[in-house]
Amino acid sequence: MNNAQIKFENAVKNNKHICVGLDTDINKIPDYIKKYNNPILEFNKIVIEHTKEFAGSYKLNFAFYESLGNQGMKILEDSLKLIPSNILTIGDAKRGDIGNTSQMYAKSIYDSFNFDSVTLNPYMGIDSVEPFLDYHNKISFVLVLTSNKSANDFEKLILDNGKYLYQNVLDKVNNWNNNNNCGIVFGATNIDELKMNISNFNNLYVLLPGVGAQGGSLEEIVKTYKEAGLNRYQVNVSRALLYCDSSNNFPSKLNETIRNYNKIIESFS
Amino acid sequence: MNNAQIKFENAVKNNKHICVGLDTDINKIPDYIKKYNNPILEFNKIVIEHTKEFAGSYKLNFAFYESLGNQGMKILEDSLKLIPSNILTIGDAKRGDIGNTSQMYAKSIYDSFNFDSVTLNPYMGIDSVEPFLDYHNKISFVLVLTSNKSANDFEKLILDNGKYLYQNVLDKVNNWNNNNNCGIVFGATNIDELKMNISNFNNLYVLLPGVGAQGGSLEEIVKTYKEAGLNRYQVNVSRALLYCDSSNNFPSKLNETIRNYNKIIESFS
Repeated sequence: MNNAQIKFENAVKNNKHICVGLDTDINKIPDYIKKYNNPILEFNKIVIEHTKEFAGSYKLNFAFYESLGNQGMKILEDSLKLIPSNILTIGDAKRGDIGNTSQMYAKSIYDSFNFDSVTLNPYMGIDSVEPFLDYHNKISFVLVLTSNKSANDFEKLILDNGKYLYQNVLDKVNNWNNNNNCGIVFGATNIDELKMNISNFNNLYVLLPGVGAQGGSLEEIVKTYKEAGLNRYQVNVSRALLYCDSSNNFPSKLNETIRNYNKIIESFS
Repeated sequence: MNNAQIKFENAVKNNKHICVGLDTDINKIPDYIKKYNNPILEFNKIVIEHTKEFAGSYKLNFAFYESLGNQGMKILEDSLKLIPSNILTIGDAKRGDIGNTSQMYAKSIYDSFNFDSVTLNPYMGIDSVEPFLDYHNKISFVLVLTSNKSANDFEKLILDNGKYLYQNVLDKVNNWNNNNNCGIVFGATNIDELKMNISNFNNLYVLLPGVGAQGGSLEEIVKTYKEAGLNRYQVNVSRALLYCDSSNNFPSKLNETIRNYNKIIESFS
């Protein structure tokens, strides 16, 4: 099964809305795992092993691997292979460049790495996004509203039509979605922003970061989606899952943590 | 000499304003170089060898190397080592992510790769730029106005204060420049935009793409800078230099091409 859309749909149909963010930081993993030969890969293996039954998707943040040089990129590749083939993989690369360059990035992420989906930065406009959208069986998540404080700097500037810049990006992504392969990243730290914009999400696949270490509420997100009658979303959790326990009990604690998230989700269904 | 600012100043003081963009595409290099064991590295070596006396800086676009997997990143590293240590190197990565992630990217580009400077995407705001600005001896070039057509999509949206979004980004970067380590990327395909904004460039280091394959005029840029009494700029040329000749005469043609660019620059001094 190679189709990103089918993977996404199957996950959400089964109430699997948690995207496990594999933003692995060697300094934060349990000591007993640090002793392995390749501790980051070993850690990712444990995380995948103990969450795969409950996860809706896995997101791998390129920064955490790239910062380790070539060896890191090998760990990224190897980790990707450990993810069951029926679960959506997201290459969190936030790419965006002029057309001929974006084409190289699209090749890299979709052909070489074989990710199901990617995150993209919209600043440079459609030229920079199009080479990714040319892959109809993949999902390209465009940053709309991010979960960091300084989203205020530009994303929330008000345009001459009275809308926020990020809302204009949302409008444009809706326009680009002719092949049902567009997604958006929409920060969920402030639930009012989700409530204010969800009616414009339409068929877009949505990735919501901000729950856990960043303070967003899973309950509120699930409730808001329920009320809107929509279901195409994945809620990213990275640090609150990966660093839930630093002892040898890490695997079982991890398993418990993601199951608790799923219980919250199921309680609304 | 490890200070990016000194390298930049030395270059422009000597009328060296051409930034050679090493966006190497295996399909476009001369046939005789394709026969080498590691043709991309060999090509980059020839380019550096025959331009280093005349180049103000070298820009390596990550996409072109990343798309070749681990091997590509090795070529990127090896190419970087071939650049004389007194010439500014620019990691054209267009990065931008939340704080803890941007920190990983900054480490990667500034510590692991040891680039003198980087290109950054501003969409997510200061959080995403700050970890790079914490390196005071480097130069971080923030995208302001890009040279592609769809810069219209978002960069040229008009805000409620009547300014373009990109002009607001320019204002912000000026505010961030407390340590004289901020730069901007400002597309030079339309000279009127340069003329309209150059009075707000102040002390910022400026990288201008768009000359050559994209149609911008080197003469017009140099003239505009001269009239404004400013000198802190590098004009990126990639395709028009790299693919100036496909025969065995490539090295001498390359040398001739960059020298001709410098003659244009010198004619205004």
